[in-house]
Amino acid sequence: MTRSMETDLLDPADPDAAPGPHPLTDEEQADLHAWWRAANYLAVGQIYLMDNPLLRRELVPDDVKPRLLGHWGTTPGLTFVHAHLNRVIRQHDLDAILLHGPGHGGPAAVAGSYLDGSYSEIYPHIGLDEDGMRTLFRQFSFPGGIPSHVAPETPGSIHEGGELGYVLSHAYGAAYDNPDLVVTAVVGDGESETGPLAASWHANKLIDPATDGAVLPVLHLNGYKIANPTIPARISREELLDLLHGYGHDVLVVEGSDPQVLHRVMADAMDAAVARIRQIQAAARAEPGRPRELWPMILLVTPKGWTGPKEIDGLQYEGTWRSHQVPLTGTRDNDDHRRMLVEWMRSYRPEELFDEAGRPVPRILAQAPPGFRRIGMNPHANGGLLRTPLKLRDFREFGVPVSVPGAAAHEPTRVLGSYLTDVVTANPANFRIMGPDETESNRLGAVYEVTDKVWHGEIWPVDVNLAPQGRVVELLSEHTLEGLLEGYLLTGRHGLFSCYEAFIHLVDSMFNQHAKWLKVTRGIGWRAPIASLNYLLTSHVWRQDHNGFSHQDPGFIDHVVNKKAEVVRVYLPPDTNTLLSTAQHCLASVDYVNVMVVGKQPCFDWLDPDTAGLHCARGLGIWDWASTEPEDPDVVLACAGDVPTLEMLAAVSILRERLPELKVRFVNVVDLMRLQDATQHPHGLSARDFDGIFTTDKPVIFAYHGYPWLIHRLTYRRTNHANLHVRGYIEEGTTTTPFDMVMLNDMDRYHLVMDVIDRVPSLQGRAALLRQEMVDARARARAWTRDHGDDIPEVRDWVWPDARDEAGTTAGQLSDTSADFSPADAQPQN
Amino acid sequence: MTRSMETDLLDPADPDAAPGPHPLTDEEQADLHAWWRAANYLAVGQIYLMDNPLLRRELVPDDVKPRLLGHWGTTPGLTFVHAHLNRVIRQHDLDAILLHGPGHGGPAAVAGSYLDGSYSEIYPHIGLDEDGMRTLFRQFSFPGGIPSHVAPETPGSIHEGGELGYVLSHAYGAAYDNPDLVVTAVVGDGESETGPLAASWHANKLIDPATDGAVLPVLHLNGYKIANPTIPARISREELLDLLHGYGHDVLVVEGSDPQVLHRVMADAMDAAVARIRQIQAAARAEPGRPRELWPMILLVTPKGWTGPKEIDGLQYEGTWRSHQVPLTGTRDNDDHRRMLVEWMRSYRPEELFDEAGRPVPRILAQAPPGFRRIGMNPHANGGLLRTPLKLRDFREFGVPVSVPGAAAHEPTRVLGSYLTDVVTANPANFRIMGPDETESNRLGAVYEVTDKVWHGEIWPVDVNLAPQGRVVELLSEHTLEGLLEGYLLTGRHGLFSCYEAFIHLVDSMFNQHAKWLKVTRGIGWRAPIASLNYLLTSHVWRQDHNGFSHQDPGFIDHVVNKKAEVVRVYLPPDTNTLLSTAQHCLASVDYVNVMVVGKQPCFDWLDPDTAGLHCARGLGIWDWASTEPEDPDVVLACAGDVPTLEMLAAVSILRERLPELKVRFVNVVDLMRLQDATQHPHGLSARDFDGIFTTDKPVIFAYHGYPWLIHRLTYRRTNHANLHVRGYIEEGTTTTPFDMVMLNDMDRYHLVMDVIDRVPSLQGRAALLRQEMVDARARARAWTRDHGDDIPEVRDWVWPDARDEAGTTAGQLSDTSADFSPADAQPQN
Repeated sequence: MTRSMETDLLDPADPDAAPGPHPLTDEEQADLHAWWRAANYLAVGQIYLMDNPLLRRELVPDDVKPRLLGHWGTTPGLTFVHAHLNRVIRQHDLDAILLHGPGHGGPAAVAGSYLDGSYSEIYPHIGLDEDGMRTLFRQFSFPGGIPSHVAPETPGSIHEGGELGYVLSHAYGAAYDNPDLVVTAVVGDGESETGPLAASWHANKLIDPATDGAVLPVLHLNGYKIANPTIPARISREELLDLLHGYGHDVLVVEGSDPQVLHRVMADAMDAAVARIRQIQAAARAEPGRPRELWPMILLVTPKGWTGPKEIDGLQYEGTWRSHQVPLTGTRDNDDHRRMLVEWMRSYRPEELFDEAGRPVPRILAQAPPGFRRIGMNPHANGGLLRTPLKLRDFREFGVPVSVPGAAAHEPTRVLGSYLTDVVTANPANFRIMGPDETESNRLGAVYEVTDKVWHGEIWPVDVNLAPQGRVVELLSEHTLEGLLEGYLLTGRHGLFSCYEAFIHLVDSMFNQHAKWLKVTRGIGWRAPIASLNYLLTSHVWRQDHNGFSHQDPGFIDHVVNKKAEVVRVYLPPDTNTLLSTAQHCLASVDYVNVMVVGKQPCFDWLDPDTAGLHCARGLGIWDWASTEPEDPDVVLACAGDVPTLEMLAAVSILRERLPELKVRFVNVVDLMRLQDATQHPHGLSARDFDGIFTTDKPVIFAYHGYPWLIHRLTYRRTNHANLHVRGYIEEGTTTTPFDMVMLNDMDRYHLVMDVIDRVPSLQGRAALLRQEMVDARARARAWTRDHGDDIPEVRDWVWPDARDEAGTTAGQLSDTSADFSPADAQPQN
Repeated sequence: MTRSMETDLLDPADPDAAPGPHPLTDEEQADLHAWWRAANYLAVGQIYLMDNPLLRRELVPDDVKPRLLGHWGTTPGLTFVHAHLNRVIRQHDLDAILLHGPGHGGPAAVAGSYLDGSYSEIYPHIGLDEDGMRTLFRQFSFPGGIPSHVAPETPGSIHEGGELGYVLSHAYGAAYDNPDLVVTAVVGDGESETGPLAASWHANKLIDPATDGAVLPVLHLNGYKIANPTIPARISREELLDLLHGYGHDVLVVEGSDPQVLHRVMADAMDAAVARIRQIQAAARAEPGRPRELWPMILLVTPKGWTGPKEIDGLQYEGTWRSHQVPLTGTRDNDDHRRMLVEWMRSYRPEELFDEAGRPVPRILAQAPPGFRRIGMNPHANGGLLRTPLKLRDFREFGVPVSVPGAAAHEPTRVLGSYLTDVVTANPANFRIMGPDETESNRLGAVYEVTDKVWHGEIWPVDVNLAPQGRVVELLSEHTLEGLLEGYLLTGRHGLFSCYEAFIHLVDSMFNQHAKWLKVTRGIGWRAPIASLNYLLTSHVWRQDHNGFSHQDPGFIDHVVNKKAEVVRVYLPPDTNTLLSTAQHCLASVDYVNVMVVGKQPCFDWLDPDTAGLHCARGLGIWDWASTEPEDPDVVLACAGDVPTLEMLAAVSILRERLPELKVRFVNVVDLMRLQDATQHPHGLSARDFDGIFTTDKPVIFAYHGYPWLIHRLTYRRTNHANLHVRGYIEEGTTTTPFDMVMLNDMDRYHLVMDVIDRVPSLQGRAALLRQEMVDARARARAWTRDHGDDIPEVRDWVWPDARDEAGTTAGQLSDTSADFSPADAQPQN
């Protein structure tokens, strides 16, 4: 077995090996080297200079920035890849984008797109001349300027350079359904130590060479992180090559420190890689379903801080961690360092690279691919340009009929599965569903009627719903799936991430970066809107019965709500039709992060499709049929979430029977952001609207899905906040029936009734017996679960009073004792 | 190169190969198999039965639990490993613990510790008889019982079985500084797809065979997850073995489905692995610093749901994903399934395994290792038993002198580094510092005077502070470090995790699981307290100048505060001495998660060591010297965090000069939990104390490090909440000087002065000119940063008025224009 792939591996007789190797001519190599020197010059200039960009006069302290920021160490490797990618794009008319895993190398990406003219086209005030270069340098990591990392401001980027680990998953997401695209993804060797990156190598088993594009990983081994060597640089080369082979790659090694030698090796490797990619794709397209082949990748081994200062103040810099950030410090005041900076920059011979006006000379400009083939201008990296809205049918066509609220029950996600089946069918090449081994468990399995899970590992006869092509992507790595979906959205497509609520915290920090991207792009006119990032969180905290007490944390909502109001939305549909309405709305939206939280177990149908649509459009509202006196209540009973809605309605049913004179207004909240003030969130209710619904002086009992303090946080400025009493999720011990969980959190119907008795002034001293009955009922229910391992019948079989006489209503229709995943669900659908 | 290690690899002539292979005798094998059958019987019983545990009468519906929960699929593999680990423990008097990566396999861990008697010793109501077995079965995943996952309740466990991915990092953490311990870590093949697990394989380069124990990974390839095959099961075996070799392992393959064959293969493999571990350790102990060797590991390939139902209702179960959870569903009501359940359980021949009383027969009991060698009783798995408090010197000895507040400045973390140097020296074998490549960057580098970073990759001459042994653990994987530290703490040791504030969200979900562990253990009497999990979050959000706008999120505090009050503490020391006091307190504490947030850049010294100690003990308090009228104020100015404290003091200095008649009370908060009510958090202030400090009716302006709404959330029940105005961190655009960041968030001194003018009734209509001056000063400061790339001198050089005349106070002492990491810091310390 060949582990280190030879560049002659391509059989020239093979007709599929379309683009053969094109050895560099001396002139091509000289031009390429000139481009690289220019890019490195521009990178150094960005890090250091406020003025005197071409060093045409003596460099004085005021020319140097007072704060030196940015990362030099990775930059020359990134510019090297950029130079060679330019070449193969031109050579093979390749449709290619470049993702920088070592995202700190912002100067490299900016320099590259400046040299190909994209930067000046997008930012006309930064022209291809000395003035433009001055502005380019000055703005870098400067107040009011651009970040030091690759960022939304960077042309050609779909990858934020803050937290590391996501470049491969973003790359594979970008390659999905773009059969001609080659996504070059530079993986830093530091980044390669992170968990998310380590997992994402295996995404090459989830991509289809017949219908998807290709990812060309370049593992850039410059050997060091901030203050340490990297693991892959300090294990034996044999172990490293085995590791990369184990990830499913044939490895092309490009190693050295002499650029002249390395240009030829790298050019050969890039040619070979492109040829191999085309070969694999051609074979797969000719013979669908053939076994997976090893994809090519490049192992690029070059010194850290390559071409930078070799030694400073007696210490080695080039080739060590010391060149990670800014190698020459105090450059403004240290004459010696300033002289070294000039020497360093002059070593690139800028006078050969830029003409009198400061414009790159023609041989450099000629390196840029034409038009939209430029890395800085490829539309895939501004995916909103390519986005077409999803074709969505009206959710009402898929809704469940509701004659009387609560007369029937459905599993909301199962019905959503039917709706998604239509979305998949109508949008066969720009919509994907991501699930960490949970799509079936989350009861969305109807989609397998029309599609499969993409899988390029071996497929055995026993398998179901696995295929080389499929719109569902499953892997037991939330990180990889989140990255794939982000990459897919950022290149102009659409998707849904369904996940157990408790485990979505795995991607808290990835959500952070994506939310930051969305926030920043709102201020960048040239970035077209992209589809929203849609989370469906199910298997939620109130159903520990299905999960043995491991699904404890509803705090993702809190995490999301911390982000800028413009980009986040949180929805808590109380039933099936409201989920459908919410999902359609989210799938049609752009530039948001939408979080939908709903259970997968049977849930009473409260609203018919039309009413559900109206309710969701309002975001919150009074449910007339559940109120006894909606206009002039003694108390407002509010709820958000499916289980809280059930318990609150059960409480109302007790109150209606036992305290018929009590005037109750029932309010349900679907869109959590409606609770905030209009001045704080675009969805927020005005003070007048809020006070109209929640009153200014009546007690409000609020049952909420998540941590109760979030409701207080969202409403603490509201007039009636002092009368608001919230019950929600608080972490307590183990439990295994649904109502036990509710009781454990004191969010049960009995407690809610007690709250009403305690807080409505007119009931003071009048309902002590009922209150005591509630205490007893609760104790009985608790004892029952401990004896029987199931909910007490009066809870299990509870039905909304007005639905009791309806045909079709049977006791215990909410009872769902199946385990988290029923194997029968996974049977073939025909 | 041998990639698949042969069991004859051990040279019998090698004297270091202490425990040679011990081929199983037929009788040993029969005993071992009987134990395995018993464990499997007990596992099935836990999943299904409420009664009739020995099937001594017909199984009726009421014997079966109404809700069938738990994971059968992984269980027989786990019991298989358990059986064989028992054997080698006995054979070699091994000190070994067992970590279950597939933590859903709770029934396996419980069965194992029941059979070795640990369970009954710890839970005397669950005896080794039929009654005990009934209770054991019934309690499993039953209301009021135990979770279905491996959990704190499980004897012998240090590993919660909720979220997957952490078994190897926990294992390596447990092995640290336990030179005789062998930690067997079963990695599920589903779990192996996760990022955290994928990264943690490389922890074998961060462990020292001379002074640490060993980890024996067992990759359990049963081929399936919930609804899919696993990646490692569906790549070529060659790729898989290369991958594992690339991780640094020699692989012993144990594959098959015939238990009789596999017992012998597994026994040989376990013997070989133990021998190889001892060989590596002996060599390293004889010759310190010799090159790293490949550690052994086992690849165990067995059918999913092994020995369970082969087929149910016409579908294959054993050997497929269908046996992942509960293979026979509806067993209570489905006579056919109930009959199959009986057949399945009887296939283990319980009559041979348990005597008349239901007690395991002697040949089974004899499989248990003796006393504390039992997997369920090994004290390392109840680490609190082994914990000795850290030897900590009084922080005052390391404090910086403060004659006048604000007369000098220090980098708080750099001074903490000196304190930690002493902690490392005084506690050479039970304290470690974890840092994701950031210990030096976080300015704790003083510790390298007395220790190094542990590193078993290659070490080159250029390297500094790397050594085979070291108390600092660095890797660019927050997940792995968090897991290592958790494993270290759970086995009775101490540590500190220093991390950039923004990136700590990477471990949100790991923190969740650890906090859950701590919460649950508070109710488990036999679990001894363990050292707290201490986070030092620095490089924080207010210093984007150092991080190019990638360090945006202070929300980890919010995430932490969602957890149960008993287990979480958050500290925001305003200066160097308060950080030292806080750190000493945290390092001495048990059973908490402590979060300390402080910057690493120069910070004025406000409190002398004694005062700092008192202030931290109170948690919050009035700073007399910063107040103009602490007793009877017009306004309370409060702050929490280093930058907010600086800004609030700067605001006070303006107010003192310009509105000398204004009576100001200055309050600083170190311990955030003091803000909560005493009824909500053990650290909370009583209403009387709170009202005494924050008044019941005066305006309170609060400058806070994180998202402002957290302060509201913590105080919304307080009397004076309506008068509370909080300024904190809100996400906005890019910026690169510290004051620019503060201005961007409107938490600057000028805004704080405006707040006072706007909110103090006596100032209404009296200070309009000053207000306008503030607006102008702010605009000037903003323009300055955009022109100069640095803060305006009046800000940069600001000094607390009373310190202006002090010797040693020079303008601009807070100026810190160095990049995030100064390479000079990384020079050898001599």
